[in-house]
Amino acid sequence: MKPVNHIKVKKSMTINELVKQMGSAGVLGAGRLGKAVSICEAMIKDKDCKVFLGLAGPLVPGGMREIIIDIIKKKWVDVVVATGATLTHDLGEVLGYRHYQGSADADDAELYKKGIDRVYESYMPNKIYEGMEDFIAKNFDSLKGKKSIKDFLWEIGRLAPSKSILKACFENKIPVFCPAISDSGIGLMMWGHLAKGRNIETRAFEDLKEIIDIAWTAKKTGVIYFGGGVPKNYIQQAMQFSKKASYGVQVTMDRPEPGGSSGAELKEGISWGKLNPKARFVDLICDATIAMPVIYAALKERL
Amino acid sequence: MKPVNHIKVKKSMTINELVKQMGSAGVLGAGRLGKAVSICEAMIKDKDCKVFLGLAGPLVPGGMREIIIDIIKKKWVDVVVATGATLTHDLGEVLGYRHYQGSADADDAELYKKGIDRVYESYMPNKIYEGMEDFIAKNFDSLKGKKSIKDFLWEIGRLAPSKSILKACFENKIPVFCPAISDSGIGLMMWGHLAKGRNIETRAFEDLKEIIDIAWTAKKTGVIYFGGGVPKNYIQQAMQFSKKASYGVQVTMDRPEPGGSSGAELKEGISWGKLNPKARFVDLICDATIAMPVIYAALKERL
Amino acid sequence: MKPVNHIKVKKSMTINELVKQMGSAGVLGAGRLGKAVSICEAMIKDKDCKVFLGLAGPLVPGGMREIIIDIIKKKWVDVVVATGATLTHDLGEVLGYRHYQGSADADDAELYKKGIDRVYESYMPNKIYEGMEDFIAKNFDSLKGKKSIKDFLWEIGRLAPSKSILKACFENKIPVFCPAISDSGIGLMMWGHLAKGRNIETRAFEDLKEIIDIAWTAKKTGVIYFGGGVPKNYIQQAMQFSKKASYGVQVTMDRPEPGGSSGAELKEGISWGKLNPKARFVDLICDATIAMPVIYAALKERL
Amino acid sequence: MKPVNHIKVKKSMTINELVKQMGSAGVLGAGRLGKAVSICEAMIKDKDCKVFLGLAGPLVPGGMREIIIDIIKKKWVDVVVATGATLTHDLGEVLGYRHYQGSADADDAELYKKGIDRVYESYMPNKIYEGMEDFIAKNFDSLKGKKSIKDFLWEIGRLAPSKSILKACFENKIPVFCPAISDSGIGLMMWGHLAKGRNIETRAFEDLKEIIDIAWTAKKTGVIYFGGGVPKNYIQQAMQFSKKASYGVQVTMDRPEPGGSSGAELKEGISWGKLNPKARFVDLICDATIAMPVIYAALKERL
Repeated sequence: MKPVNHIKVKKSMTINELVKQMGSAGVLGAGRLGKAVSICEAMIKDKDCKVFLGLAGPLVPGGMREIIIDIIKKKWVDVVVATGATLTHDLGEVLGYRHYQGSADADDAELYKKGIDRVYESYMPNKIYEGMEDFIAKNFDSLKGKKSIKDFLWEIGRLAPSKSILKACFENKIPVFCPAISDSGIGLMMWGHLAKGRNIETRAFEDLKEIIDIAWTAKKTGVIYFGGGVPKNYIQQAMQFSKKASYGVQVTMDRPEPGGSSGAELKEGISWGKLNPKARFVDLICDATIAMPVIYAALKERL
Repeated sequence: MKPVNHIKVKKSMTINELVKQMGSAGVLGAGRLGKAVSICEAMIKDKDCKVFLGLAGPLVPGGMREIIIDIIKKKWVDVVVATGATLTHDLGEVLGYRHYQGSADADDAELYKKGIDRVYESYMPNKIYEGMEDFIAKNFDSLKGKKSIKDFLWEIGRLAPSKSILKACFENKIPVFCPAISDSGIGLMMWGHLAKGRNIETRAFEDLKEIIDIAWTAKKTGVIYFGGGVPKNYIQQAMQFSKKASYGVQVTMDRPEPGGSSGAELKEGISWGKLNPKARFVDLICDATIAMPVIYAALKERL
Repeated sequence: MKPVNHIKVKKSMTINELVKQMGSAGVLGAGRLGKAVSICEAMIKDKDCKVFLGLAGPLVPGGMREIIIDIIKKKWVDVVVATGATLTHDLGEVLGYRHYQGSADADDAELYKKGIDRVYESYMPNKIYEGMEDFIAKNFDSLKGKKSIKDFLWEIGRLAPSKSILKACFENKIPVFCPAISDSGIGLMMWGHLAKGRNIETRAFEDLKEIIDIAWTAKKTGVIYFGGGVPKNYIQQAMQFSKKASYGVQVTMDRPEPGGSSGAELKEGISWGKLNPKARFVDLICDATIAMPVIYAALKERL
Repeated sequence: MKPVNHIKVKKSMTINELVKQMGSAGVLGAGRLGKAVSICEAMIKDKDCKVFLGLAGPLVPGGMREIIIDIIKKKWVDVVVATGATLTHDLGEVLGYRHYQGSADADDAELYKKGIDRVYESYMPNKIYEGMEDFIAKNFDSLKGKKSIKDFLWEIGRLAPSKSILKACFENKIPVFCPAISDSGIGLMMWGHLAKGRNIETRAFEDLKEIIDIAWTAKKTGVIYFGGGVPKNYIQQAMQFSKKASYGVQVTMDRPEPGGSSGAELKEGISWGKLNPKARFVDLICDATIAMPVIYAALKERL
């Protein structure tokens, strides 16, 4: 049995130095954070491993946008699956809007009058929708056709006037999936055109071919989830067609007992054939906006 | 100020009698459960109100299937939005499979060998996929065409050999939406055909017209969420185009602080114009499989 | 393997009828609630079993006072361990004060000006302390002596002018423990006298003899926890000196991963020798104010 | 309104550099962590402020022991309130025992046979009790007398053969309180002597004088809570007798809705007069073993 080594903090430690000590403590949140970084490091370094990144929750309103773009640009991941909200928040920032520091105790009726949409304690100006509407209207003809959602998203990335998550995916040829894209601000912009009687032929099932092909043909696979929801579940589903994931890191605040996919412990995936019983994996119970910068900073130091 | 009335239990109380007392206690979980029932009652009784029901999490593996079917058959709700998993679990039971009582401490590698997929402490035989494959194969021609996901789901409901959630929706003309249908066992069945080079033209954005039309034209709207995820968010999105929801009941175990949509308190929707500041609404922090039978039983007694 | 039986609600079901169906569903929250009632029933019926009840959290402000008093009067439990807050809230109500239905979104600075202490969404008039001060002052001489905390609490129960948790314990000779009694409003009342230089000889460790003796001499033991904290831990500690608990029911909203005693799964106690590996036990993740009335009502129907 | 600044990670950043960026992001977990460090910094630097530190949960089994000792030695805090478990775990390590890295999925019956007590995923050898028994037996005469719990604990600190939390408190004259000391391994050791008929006169209420005096006479007060339980509540109780806390930082994974003291948001304390409405305070929803090293490392860089 390995003893729990007490963390010794020295002045001006780097993040990686602290994370190594957490790994050496070895238990509870600290130990799991240490382990999460080591597993991410291993899967990114493993040349045979295709890494699938799931993104859910208010990562962009929470200040994680630069980190996500960096991860994609570094090609640490081979596939991105995101919620429509994340891609909408990202597109908003591409178009020059910002998110703002707010309060969870705000008077929501007052915010409504001021045109501010609240996401817990971050604020988004409702005007963001106007900019997005213009952007989509201008580019509608190249978006509406018979294509997969991934191609639809890459097209938005191609068209994006400045750096963004989708642009980084497009430019680095990282497939980006968003099965529930109609459930988002971007979806609403498309609805505006549907409502005017226009035809939109984006295909609901098409992307399954691509994500399952990647999983199927990969020598090894690894999964990294910030938040649960559709992104996690869609990747998990693809893992059933892989040689079972060899690495897994999940960061969530959802609990397992209610039985939903978001809070499910990774080990549950072993029963489904999604995760290799010998895989290196860890469930980190932590706010993603705390874990992501720490994990990324430690990895940047290591890789 | 209303005092907290202590709950007095008498022998062989009905559920509604207890729920009324909980409402009279008025605070914390008990008070909120009492309030949830009263708000559901009010929105169902309100002839002007269109009720939107969001279903996420393992409701079918958790024993809620009969209740959900009953709610639809009684036409207490006007719109259903569900996860693909819920519809897949339901279809599995239609085809004669069952879910089983298991353990969260099971050896997942052993379960895998036995062909058992674990959903926390409920088990699903992996063979369910074979039955679904046959069902979809047999009916592929009527499923593959240029249609919305809702029409795709109604078609499955029409074809279902026995009572089911989708059949109840189809037969009672209750629109049922599932934006992320590709993220489910049903999606996988369709992928099997895609993989064989077949064309599937199901439309990703099409349903937005219908759900937003219902919200837009309704005199009043009410929302009931068991779990969060895409079903909640998709309904919330539609509410932006309603006269703002007048009633809201949310049952979730997710917490609000991480900022995700699933755990967001309903009042946050006021800032977005999704919820009327004068609406009657409540956030009930409870496992859905506890809350749903109690709420339904109390409502059945009242309505 | 037992199948999950879907719950079928019939009109005007009693609580026990529904709980039985939940037990038959067998999984997740519903299944655990069903199991919790069966285990409570078994341990109460078991003549050889001493039942230890732990009470933490705002049970009295949450409307559970009558139920707790009933449970004690029925002698379903042999030992009660409570937080000081619970006993303080109870004493407040004995002295004629009430708790009130409030809001978690209240302006706390305004409440302060009005003399209202907030406990999430229940309110307590700060005046309660005046009544308690009088009560303690009047009875100080019989409270201050060399006695255990249990005898101190029984004395309060004896002196209580009307029915209360402590009075029920005193009258039914149910030992009631509260190791952290100094951490409560009652503690503050005693401090008022300490501050005036008076001597108070209540003994900190003394009760250990009694609770451990009960555990040690019992043929069998069972534990029921509503909330965690010191009450749970103090009972668990005593279980180490029992023949290991044969029954366990825990109701909590705390999660296990942070590793604290309150959220710890009961099975962890097996490693400590607190729980028999063959015990019947269940962890129910539920708000205590929802679970307690349902469990109590179902038990009342059964016993 | 301040915009959310996206975190930019540069190579080999120190912890404080990252925490500053988190503060600049300003929202959700990251923003709150940034704020927590700034508030701790402010209260420690404020010469007029007495800082009260509450410690609950498995901090010692979780690898936090060196950090806690450092904080006390640096005299960053003026009062420590801890659970009995924390002091017991600490005493175990003083006496040469270690905690070990284990698994939450372990077979608890096997662990029991091996004499290993599980605390979620950390292990404690049950032999620790033998060492403690010897230690207490040897020193029983100087521990048993008419004293407050604080003096009892200082005495243990004085007697401790090597560095420890209690020794650091004793040597630096930091009052350390533990109202529920009988609810701990240390309590059990004292029980061993009670059981042999020895007299132990430790006083249950006595410490209230000292902690309330410190609160009462302080020009300003600040509170830092890692975990909730009695430590938090006991400090909160003392705050009612201060000029209301000017600073507050709480780190917890407990949720507020069940209404218990552990999960209560700090702002609730405003209604009680425990917290100044103008105080700087933050609730950080995070595993303590992640937050404590990050906060401490950032503070060490700043102070």
